[in-house]
Amino acid sequence: MKIPKIPEATITRLSVYSRYLAELSKKNIVTISSNEIAEGVGVSSAQVRKDLAYFGEFGTRGVGYNVKDLHDYIVKILGLNMEWPVVMVGAGRLGTALSMYGGFRQRGFKVVGIFDVDPNKIGQKINDVEIRPLEQLEEITKAHNAQIGIITVPASEAQEVADLLVESGIQAILNFAPKNLNVPLDIEIRNVDLAVNLEVLTFNLTMKKPSQ
Amino acid sequence: MKIPKIPEATITRLSVYSRYLAELSKKNIVTISSNEIAEGVGVSSAQVRKDLAYFGEFGTRGVGYNVKDLHDYIVKILGLNMEWPVVMVGAGRLGTALSMYGGFRQRGFKVVGIFDVDPNKIGQKINDVEIRPLEQLEEITKAHNAQIGIITVPASEAQEVADLLVESGIQAILNFAPKNLNVPLDIEIRNVDLAVNLEVLTFNLTMKKPSQ
Repeated sequence: MKIPKIPEATITRLSVYSRYLAELSKKNIVTISSNEIAEGVGVSSAQVRKDLAYFGEFGTRGVGYNVKDLHDYIVKILGLNMEWPVVMVGAGRLGTALSMYGGFRQRGFKVVGIFDVDPNKIGQKINDVEIRPLEQLEEITKAHNAQIGIITVPASEAQEVADLLVESGIQAILNFAPKNLNVPLDIEIRNVDLAVNLEVLTFNLTMKKPSQ
Repeated sequence: MKIPKIPEATITRLSVYSRYLAELSKKNIVTISSNEIAEGVGVSSAQVRKDLAYFGEFGTRGVGYNVKDLHDYIVKILGLNMEWPVVMVGAGRLGTALSMYGGFRQRGFKVVGIFDVDPNKIGQKINDVEIRPLEQLEEITKAHNAQIGIITVPASEAQEVADLLVESGIQAILNFAPKNLNVPLDIEIRNVDLAVNLEVLTFNLTMKKPSQ
């Protein structure tokens, strides 16, 4: 699959389209137009066509897309036609919530290891997965061939954890700690800052105010 | 402030720039170039300049930007030069984690009400905020003049909660339930799907594999 550089916004929209197509598929809907996808997910139909065009020719003019084929293709593009073992470092409230988050499992992400430094937490289980000391990170990562690590430790410990994940053989990191982390160039990293989502809202609320 | 339609990606990057500038400001760094901002946050310097250009002229050629001025200006653009009271519906694991999430408070978001339908939870406190029954949503929202509501209930209840938030006078909704919600056109809504973040990583990991 040789594909040009895809904007990240397109990838996140593909993820949204695939969910919508999965819903439609469950309702036995066979074909759909780009206008209908656009309306269903709240983006413009031009955007839908542009996003899909990155990956070649889809659909039939005047007929639309086959729901199941398009769904399966997008799922494959996103790499979700397989299960992804994930290790999670940080068994605090956020780590626990994420470990139990149904949305991960539903999309093929399986938490295979949870790690913490707190001796009181070690040995406890979250969704049948034992909380282990960091010393076992590499062993568990390799045993499950996990390529993805999630960081939910405080900002002050996040860099050290990122280094450990990289040493353990992790290829991609999802970082929830509010800190920019340094990782080797060949490691994929994505920072999730939950407050950013609120800031998009306050930006829009502020722009709306006639007084400003 | 008359500003053209800004891409959401720009707004999220502004949020990232402002954090980085706050860090620099703490270190008493006075000026910075777009190249340095770019390097510090991991985007191209052309992107930094383009993002800032939406909001007028910044910086001095050959000197760069004044760190504090730029920080304060971005914070104002994002509407973060004030405190935003927030109501949260759903006191499950994710709601609890979010209610205690330091990153919200740090950026001026204050959870003033937490609501749930579970009688066992009502009356308990999270970070000194009492969990209340949904019947009190409108009263608390109005008492604190909250404009933002966060939904962390299961998908099956999310639409009903969104309707209640709108009736209570909420202007913007951050939705963590994996479901597209219908709200009036004048209500800002933003869906957070935590799995999407992992899917951007799996897309990148999949694209890298030479065999595919």
